[in-house]
Amino acid sequence: MTLLTSPSGALPSTALLTDHYELTMVRAAMRSKTAGRASVFELFARRLPEGRRYGVVAGVARALEAIQAFRFDESALNFLLEENVIDTDLADWLSRYKFRGDVWGYPEGEVYFPGSPLLVVEGSFAEAVLLETLLLSIYNYDCAVASAASRMTAMAGDRPCIEMGSRRTNEYAAVSAARAAYLAGFQATSNLEAGRSYGIPTTGTAAHSFTLLHDTEEEAFKAQLKTLGKSTTLLVDTYDIEEAVRTGVRLSKGKLGAIRLDSGDLAELATQVRALLDSLGATKTKIIVTSDLDEYQIAALRSAPVDGYGVGTSLVTGSGAPTCGFIYKLVARAESDAKDAPLIPVAKRSPEKATVGGRKYALRRLGPDGRAQAEVIGIGTPPVDDGNDRPLLVPLMSKGKVVYREPLEAARERHQQVRAELPLSASKMSKGEPSLPTLLLDEAGRTLESPYLRRPS
Amino acid sequence: MTLLTSPSGALPSTALLTDHYELTMVRAAMRSKTAGRASVFELFARRLPEGRRYGVVAGVARALEAIQAFRFDESALNFLLEENVIDTDLADWLSRYKFRGDVWGYPEGEVYFPGSPLLVVEGSFAEAVLLETLLLSIYNYDCAVASAASRMTAMAGDRPCIEMGSRRTNEYAAVSAARAAYLAGFQATSNLEAGRSYGIPTTGTAAHSFTLLHDTEEEAFKAQLKTLGKSTTLLVDTYDIEEAVRTGVRLSKGKLGAIRLDSGDLAELATQVRALLDSLGATKTKIIVTSDLDEYQIAALRSAPVDGYGVGTSLVTGSGAPTCGFIYKLVARAESDAKDAPLIPVAKRSPEKATVGGRKYALRRLGPDGRAQAEVIGIGTPPVDDGNDRPLLVPLMSKGKVVYREPLEAARERHQQVRAELPLSASKMSKGEPSLPTLLLDEAGRTLESPYLRRPS
Repeated sequence: MTLLTSPSGALPSTALLTDHYELTMVRAAMRSKTAGRASVFELFARRLPEGRRYGVVAGVARALEAIQAFRFDESALNFLLEENVIDTDLADWLSRYKFRGDVWGYPEGEVYFPGSPLLVVEGSFAEAVLLETLLLSIYNYDCAVASAASRMTAMAGDRPCIEMGSRRTNEYAAVSAARAAYLAGFQATSNLEAGRSYGIPTTGTAAHSFTLLHDTEEEAFKAQLKTLGKSTTLLVDTYDIEEAVRTGVRLSKGKLGAIRLDSGDLAELATQVRALLDSLGATKTKIIVTSDLDEYQIAALRSAPVDGYGVGTSLVTGSGAPTCGFIYKLVARAESDAKDAPLIPVAKRSPEKATVGGRKYALRRLGPDGRAQAEVIGIGTPPVDDGNDRPLLVPLMSKGKVVYREPLEAARERHQQVRAELPLSASKMSKGEPSLPTLLLDEAGRTLESPYLRRPS
Repeated sequence: MTLLTSPSGALPSTALLTDHYELTMVRAAMRSKTAGRASVFELFARRLPEGRRYGVVAGVARALEAIQAFRFDESALNFLLEENVIDTDLADWLSRYKFRGDVWGYPEGEVYFPGSPLLVVEGSFAEAVLLETLLLSIYNYDCAVASAASRMTAMAGDRPCIEMGSRRTNEYAAVSAARAAYLAGFQATSNLEAGRSYGIPTTGTAAHSFTLLHDTEEEAFKAQLKTLGKSTTLLVDTYDIEEAVRTGVRLSKGKLGAIRLDSGDLAELATQVRALLDSLGATKTKIIVTSDLDEYQIAALRSAPVDGYGVGTSLVTGSGAPTCGFIYKLVARAESDAKDAPLIPVAKRSPEKATVGGRKYALRRLGPDGRAQAEVIGIGTPPVDDGNDRPLLVPLMSKGKVVYREPLEAARERHQQVRAELPLSASKMSKGEPSLPTLLLDEAGRTLESPYLRRPS
């Protein structure tokens, strides 16, 4: 991403965007000579945010870029040594660190459910554990925004949604949010860095301050129309909406592109403004609404004469679920320190936080009608494809090299297709169970009692 | 912040971390020749997050750094020209852009209330409006985290709180979150970049994966104790807690620093583990708890034998309020284009979103007992100090130069002092009204009917 790119074109080091304990674990594992044990880590969520029907995978390409930039430079090593986080042996190892393992994962735009193994990271314990915090940060935020965005675009139907929440979240998170929203069907963003870094269309015209700056609203509108053309969007609720609409139509000779409403009862105002525009002959002038929208408001505005939605706060904060609760767990490791020792499943037994050991494989079970039926997770071996199914884990990195590359548009299209496969319950805004059950199968293909099984509804 | 610092030591350009419309407004204002009008913008919140008693100011030093780095380089200008966001006239102006105005603001660690003018930015319209999105991003996130953090440290009392939420938020937001939490009384962070960039103490020992990596829990504990010393914290809930505690005490010969509980009923487990530790003679071994804590859980654990709290998700997501709802509004501008034209107040009249025009001044009214009584905001002139009061706006930038610099520790101390001045209602966890009323005074000192007046409780 250009924003953070050094003149050489590489992302600056991401190595300190991590937790202290990742390094102390490696340090202690070097002492017990277990640091090199082959290990499998898995990134997944125990559950979806309360009442959600599905989640959306986003941040994959960002994560791969961040892994490649996970290198310890002299400044980082000096800091860690001075603070006694690491010793000189570990510093020496870190100075040569580069992830050399394999990564599989759900492609961007896919949907996920409780227990879905969004990422499977294989490498030595030391090299794979170091990535924990960074991968979780990226997935937890990007997927939260994409999951909220997908609900909004589903409710908006054919009407375009524009992402404009940059101001409501951390300045760098804002860029990722724009990307995640675009992936999930938003048409454009207000964020310029997202335009530069990811090629996402950017839009914007004017705020209330622009009108207030001028001696009259008419002068403000004139300046905007002259500069941005008649197809621009005029913000009409600074003073009196009716007067503003009349002024805008008059100045544009009925050719005004759109007006924007940013306050009040949007359904009622949109209806009034539509009637006024039509009476003035501006039948093609669109109505864009932008005041504190979320998926529920968008659904409620379905019958209102609205042509587009600008969404901010609720989008970049995940609409009530600002993080996804992803965790990154060791699920298998070499049985011993012997070379080529076989992997054995491992799991913790913490109350209410027990994990399921073993390397996972996953497929989406699809019926003959193409409708998704279940998220099927095989432990230790891939579940049997019954003919229509789609394997969900694709290779992302092989021996440290990135092997997954696709344009953002491809991920965006995937999301539309994958969402359309889900049962109709997926588009319910009411709180409920995940729209697919998660089935856990053992190596013999027997269904296990699963911590992720949908509760009976 | 080192993370984003180029080899020359400067923050890379922040100029594209902004919304498209900031630039189109300047472009249109150049055409109407209003871009140079002296303007006053104000950053404030209409209300606190639902039920909150006060908010905490954070991000000030970050915002000042970001303003200084708000410069348009060739790459940014080329992108903006190619996308037709700007024209060549504006590109020319932007290539020389540097904020040359004045900024006042609440110092870091202060508390704020509805209507508090956290920032007052004076400059030409063009130079001041451009900063809108970036300033809002920084304040909306940093203050959200600091406000949540303050509630947690207030509930924790003398027991230390450790920030460990990096994995639950965007990877760069995580660094800012650690800073905001520290400001509001947290004692340390897990985030290494926050340690390097801001000198915040970092801590961490091991996760469950470290125990699972070893053939036995005992081997894992041995490795950790040898590497990090007996004062380390052992995570004891991977398998059986009692057995783990016994092993830890035995291996450390009763000198174990702490154990960590990360699951289950923490109050009950802490009581059992305390009794066990004491029975084993490990009376000085501390108990740290870390499972999905928030201010309510921390309050509920007051009577439990707990020695410290590690807080993640709820902290970095603002404990239910991941953004503060700050807005950045034009409140005054030059009356005309004449040189030295006087400033006149301006305000929009949008339904439910009306603003109060005029440059604001603010002080905290303190009683003779030193207890805070009100947030007093003067319009156009500073409210009269009745002897014990504290002016709240301090100069941050003067003619484009930063004039506010203080160590993070000073802001941290300020927060402790300022919070202690608040009425006792401020530390109530129940939902309620802001703990101080906001009084709006006109130039003659008369109290105005205020949109920010506390509702009668």
